[in-house]
Amino acid sequence: MSVVAETGSSLERLKRILGEVADLKHAEAVLDWDARVSMPPAGAEARAEASATLTRLSHGRFIADDVGELLGELEGTDGDPESDDGALLRVTRRLWERARRVPSELAGEMARANGVAVAAWDRAKSASDFASFAPHLQRQLELKHRYIECFSEIETAYDVLLEDYEEGMTTTEVVRVFDRLKDELIAIVERRRGDSAAEEPLRGPFPVALQHEAGRRVLEAFGADVSSWRIDETPHPFASKPGVGDIRLTTHTDENDLTSLFSTMHEFGHGIYEYDVDPSFARTPLGGGTSSAIHESQSRTWENLVGRSSAFWRWFYPQLQALFAETLGGVDESSFVRGVNAVRPGLIRGDADEVTYGLHIILRFELEQELLAGSVSVGELPEVWNARMQEYLGVDVPDDARGVLQDMHWAVGLFGYFPTYQLGNVVSVQIWEKAVADLGDLDEAFSRGDFSSLREWLREHVYRHGSKYPPRDLLRRVTGSDLDPDPYLRYLHAKFA
Amino acid sequence: MSVVAETGSSLERLKRILGEVADLKHAEAVLDWDARVSMPPAGAEARAEASATLTRLSHGRFIADDVGELLGELEGTDGDPESDDGALLRVTRRLWERARRVPSELAGEMARANGVAVAAWDRAKSASDFASFAPHLQRQLELKHRYIECFSEIETAYDVLLEDYEEGMTTTEVVRVFDRLKDELIAIVERRRGDSAAEEPLRGPFPVALQHEAGRRVLEAFGADVSSWRIDETPHPFASKPGVGDIRLTTHTDENDLTSLFSTMHEFGHGIYEYDVDPSFARTPLGGGTSSAIHESQSRTWENLVGRSSAFWRWFYPQLQALFAETLGGVDESSFVRGVNAVRPGLIRGDADEVTYGLHIILRFELEQELLAGSVSVGELPEVWNARMQEYLGVDVPDDARGVLQDMHWAVGLFGYFPTYQLGNVVSVQIWEKAVADLGDLDEAFSRGDFSSLREWLREHVYRHGSKYPPRDLLRRVTGSDLDPDPYLRYLHAKFA
Repeated sequence: MSVVAETGSSLERLKRILGEVADLKHAEAVLDWDARVSMPPAGAEARAEASATLTRLSHGRFIADDVGELLGELEGTDGDPESDDGALLRVTRRLWERARRVPSELAGEMARANGVAVAAWDRAKSASDFASFAPHLQRQLELKHRYIECFSEIETAYDVLLEDYEEGMTTTEVVRVFDRLKDELIAIVERRRGDSAAEEPLRGPFPVALQHEAGRRVLEAFGADVSSWRIDETPHPFASKPGVGDIRLTTHTDENDLTSLFSTMHEFGHGIYEYDVDPSFARTPLGGGTSSAIHESQSRTWENLVGRSSAFWRWFYPQLQALFAETLGGVDESSFVRGVNAVRPGLIRGDADEVTYGLHIILRFELEQELLAGSVSVGELPEVWNARMQEYLGVDVPDDARGVLQDMHWAVGLFGYFPTYQLGNVVSVQIWEKAVADLGDLDEAFSRGDFSSLREWLREHVYRHGSKYPPRDLLRRVTGSDLDPDPYLRYLHAKFA
Repeated sequence: MSVVAETGSSLERLKRILGEVADLKHAEAVLDWDARVSMPPAGAEARAEASATLTRLSHGRFIADDVGELLGELEGTDGDPESDDGALLRVTRRLWERARRVPSELAGEMARANGVAVAAWDRAKSASDFASFAPHLQRQLELKHRYIECFSEIETAYDVLLEDYEEGMTTTEVVRVFDRLKDELIAIVERRRGDSAAEEPLRGPFPVALQHEAGRRVLEAFGADVSSWRIDETPHPFASKPGVGDIRLTTHTDENDLTSLFSTMHEFGHGIYEYDVDPSFARTPLGGGTSSAIHESQSRTWENLVGRSSAFWRWFYPQLQALFAETLGGVDESSFVRGVNAVRPGLIRGDADEVTYGLHIILRFELEQELLAGSVSVGELPEVWNARMQEYLGVDVPDDARGVLQDMHWAVGLFGYFPTYQLGNVVSVQIWEKAVADLGDLDEAFSRGDFSSLREWLREHVYRHGSKYPPRDLLRRVTGSDLDPDPYLRYLHAKFA
């Protein structure tokens, strides 16, 4: 089906094929965004079919023999990992060798199952009816097992899944980091039991239109200009980049709290990473962020390290207070900042504070492994979920909508993804410490609403590289260190002492 | 690149390939809709590339040898044109034989040129600067010539283009119909010189939000439910169906007039035709309307024969008057109906009344032929345009934005499309007369806001058939007659006597 002209050097020909694959992925991204933002609900079935076909075609095009032949012809020419072309060949070879293991039919089937399961999950969550979602989760697990079998030489099944989101990461390493965190997080939660009172001022009402205005102002100050960025409402926030110059965020605004504002800053972090990738990497596998954890480190940087800092609110609180004069008129800045930083064990990962968030992730990481190993069955899942929420966070789960059904990840086949959220928190502080070491104190600039020096530093050191460096190499280049939970724990202890 | 399983009967295999092509076209439709409705402007370049790739791939997949082989294997099995499969083979064979003439590279190049030219046209129109658009128009003409050369056995170049929109239509037949109309239309325009006064009550202001509410109510009464339909604002109205259950209209709302309401009814006509196609035709070449003229006949039916009728306004005027009490409070129903039916020569095709509309089309039909023949050059076009507007409609064109740059058609390579608009007007009355003969007087139902019997009749006789019958056959099945301008002229004479 390829009709790419057969002229030029091997590298030129390879790049043309990769461009074709990237264009199909561009279309997949738009179909996905559209399905979640714009599509009339009755269009879901036809859309699932079209998305499955596109996934199948882009996968089929990528794993075709000619790509392998061109990679073979180019063997030995990619010696310099510092060169863009060298990196392109390394990344392409790795992706090709992995994708080649997976039959295109299975890739298409997984895409179709995602479309079907996410609709079922949506209905099940609305009705808090886990039983109706269970067969879809079962099906996703079966497909995951088929996928894992494509990599039969990898001993730990979960490592196969991790590798798709975090090159070079192993289950063992995640366990090592999470073990280091788990008890400390639980201890901080214990220590801060009284915090929830601090959150009182953050109960609304905060009229939705004014929250949108607040979000708009923050995005503008962060540097998201409307010629390339848009933001929409969806039930679950996400960020998407179909192509260069086209960054789309979503948020979910609830009149009763300000979660939407923080999730807007979070998605901005994903968006700006993608936006600032070197445009010469467009339409190649180098053209996006290098891994989920590095991506998440940046969303957490803008949400937490910037967006929950005292300096940020020195700039923005007067504006926020003026927008919501009725609700916040009597709340002073320091009470508000305490409120947005309160540690408060709750049911919902997406609403969690910086400390309890990690425990939500650890719970999911454990359950994913148990589901895959079969030591927890789909039927038992709600019960196990609820028991462990009690154990880690001391909360009672009143229904599955606020329990095991809260996240869409498993519905869309994302197993192995959750741990990268918490790794992202860890990495965010490692990179942040280096930025502060280079730039000096950022508080003064933030308190004037000026975030440009941080953004430019991150562009220079992280964002522009796209996927040129594997996550571990990038982290070492930026921080001089490997994955290390200590800076993150120091940060938490200092903040929540 | 096809990874469609090679199992099943020849027909099943053919249908799977056609499904794959349809899914690529689904994606193309979403990319196009998104580019016009949602995309941040800086995303245009990457989008043009992605769209070109998808066009190239869907074209390449469709013209591949295996489709020809399967059509060969199925030769002789499609004897019964009344059977769905017979029709599918006939339509597929025709499209394959035409598409096969066109190299995929040219198809992709045309798609890319459209993306570039439409952006240039947009800028040129804003600045009323024809010179900046001229090179793009020149390029489109060159590509059209290359396209026409793919069909070298067809003597009349313009016939090649017509055939893409209107199977079996010839330039000679269009000329015959338009010659019959032209003098009569000019005579009616002459007779109704005093009409423009009747339009006074239709000057606004009509607040945009209330116009949206009016449009929403009309769409609801026509039967466009929100589970499958949506409507957005764009500079130029259009309708799109990415797939089953997903109908998207757009409109352009101007506070100074009610054009948006009529264009909403117009686009509804396109939308309902697509919506009501037999769902078993989905993901095949039978799954859309059979031709541009039949499509346009339905948009004009809902816009003019329904939407400008006295009976429609007997139902809707009280509501409209209540919505716009300030502007319409003193305007009685009959003055309003006279106003929306006033014949008033103007500059803009999209705003034209039923009589002058045809003259706008005839002008474009003539100019397209002259441009293709080279008897009018791109450079001379504005001058010739302006002179002919004076000749046919007696109006002075003050600038190119309201002259030759007003329509986007030529920017997106649509040559040969304009005449189908006026053929649609002709056909609309032929079908309408048959509907009224079958259903009896519709006025009573319309005046209650009930349009269901007409809609159901059109579904049964026209819409559900999709592309099963060629336009000429469909028209004959529905009306017992071939293309005939007389009913349309009778209608105009009766209405504008």
